[in-house]
Amino acid sequence: METMIERIAILGMGLLGTSVGLALRAAGFRGSIVGWNRTPESAKQAQEMGAIDSIAKHLLEVGRECDVVLLAVPIYATLEIMEQLHGLLGPGQLVTDVGSTKAQIAAAAAQFYNQPGRAAFLPGHPMAGKERGGAALADANLFRGAVWIFTDDAEAQRTERAAALAGEWRSVVARFGAKVVDLDAERHDELVAWVSHLPQFLSTALSALLEDQVGDAPELKDVGGRALREMTRLGASPFSMWRDIAHTNGENIEVVLAAFEQRLAHLRENLRTPELREEFERANRFRRE
Amino acid sequence: METMIERIAILGMGLLGTSVGLALRAAGFRGSIVGWNRTPESAKQAQEMGAIDSIAKHLLEVGRECDVVLLAVPIYATLEIMEQLHGLLGPGQLVTDVGSTKAQIAAAAAQFYNQPGRAAFLPGHPMAGKERGGAALADANLFRGAVWIFTDDAEAQRTERAAALAGEWRSVVARFGAKVVDLDAERHDELVAWVSHLPQFLSTALSALLEDQVGDAPELKDVGGRALREMTRLGASPFSMWRDIAHTNGENIEVVLAAFEQRLAHLRENLRTPELREEFERANRFRRE
Repeated sequence: METMIERIAILGMGLLGTSVGLALRAAGFRGSIVGWNRTPESAKQAQEMGAIDSIAKHLLEVGRECDVVLLAVPIYATLEIMEQLHGLLGPGQLVTDVGSTKAQIAAAAAQFYNQPGRAAFLPGHPMAGKERGGAALADANLFRGAVWIFTDDAEAQRTERAAALAGEWRSVVARFGAKVVDLDAERHDELVAWVSHLPQFLSTALSALLEDQVGDAPELKDVGGRALREMTRLGASPFSMWRDIAHTNGENIEVVLAAFEQRLAHLRENLRTPELREEFERANRFRRE
Repeated sequence: METMIERIAILGMGLLGTSVGLALRAAGFRGSIVGWNRTPESAKQAQEMGAIDSIAKHLLEVGRECDVVLLAVPIYATLEIMEQLHGLLGPGQLVTDVGSTKAQIAAAAAQFYNQPGRAAFLPGHPMAGKERGGAALADANLFRGAVWIFTDDAEAQRTERAAALAGEWRSVVARFGAKVVDLDAERHDELVAWVSHLPQFLSTALSALLEDQVGDAPELKDVGGRALREMTRLGASPFSMWRDIAHTNGENIEVVLAAFEQRLAHLRENLRTPELREEFERANRFRRE
């Protein structure tokens, strides 16, 4: 493990924050990890699981002596903490995050960080999760095989030390087994609307619709078998997380949902025409190895 | 294993037909199993896998001496064979099937079977499958935990022997580990439009749309992670199977696709309103244990 990072703070002991703590230990990180959570129960649980060594009592005390501060809270909380924290940190420190949308976070990073005399900020987004959150489900292997996107700013002004910390953090997530991908923040938000937010909203709409149709007859759910279980698994996703995504990426999500509605209408109008075959073959191509 | 069924014919050595042969052997069936397939290669493969003992050269020769004839071909082929076969069979024989829609098959059963002097027909539908078909993927455990629906006709006229064979066939599928559910044929077709056909068409439309959006950039598919892989898995389903489903259950499928389009538009129009929370909570309820 690299040695420049000796102290890490993780703010937010949900599924992602706690999994990062566990993954750090599994990757051989020997430095200290301090954790904070809005409700202390999760921080305690994360400590019992070995994800963090100690618990910070107050949000703003944790950053001062840490090399890296990881924000692992919902998007609006991330934006709020970014603003509260920046004045307390120095130019030799790195802040990074795991937020699911990046344009607003990248804008806040340019405003409050990445300038002379300020801490560095490296916006990150691991494409990993489970349909339910919480420290209890955390897993050191959560990021294995997953893509971890960074939307760094070419204009960022950083000390040599902060730039090196950013490089080390990239190496750390690679050691978690993640595949590092770099994207522009705006492009990231467009892309995840297609490959992440669209699948989520389809599963939510399908689950909600079927709850109305057959929710009172559990034996009818069984009829759908594995296919139905898979297509509705994301229906268990918590609103608390998706509210911030819907709000901060609303325009892109509107575009992809409207595109999908058109596509499905096209399929519906062509159930008995040769176009149905075309559409199945296009779908088959997407799934080709 | 029951002993009244001594000879079984399986017409169609695809995933389902071959899996039934394997499951019969795994359940201890000691009688003979003869198989037929339109292309002989699959029949040969099924024989090599131990799913059938012998291969019938011609479709119509297999039924004569069998107690049970299982039709395991696409829906239109099932309807065609039902018509060709009924004159060759006697009232002490049972024909059953695994077709994915039941209204037209139940109508053909009433027309050609289940009358004095005619063979019995028990329409069946195991809710099991894989996103790709074929004998090579067959599995003796394919039906374990799956629902196997029968849409029998209360008006059916059967000999005592044929009625007993139908009862035995129900016991046989229960021994495969399947859960037997009885439904009216029209109600079956409505229900599977919601819990089976809707998930399939969503996955096909999603896969086809994303093939257009990001199909030329495989690294972008990785960004979607497990959620995207699951939501597009059914995109690999073959048109050859779904064409018959779309044609024979088109009216029900049109209704559910239109309902889904409305539901998704509702979600899109409420990305920033409290209704988004309601919809997520409804979806969560569908997935509650």
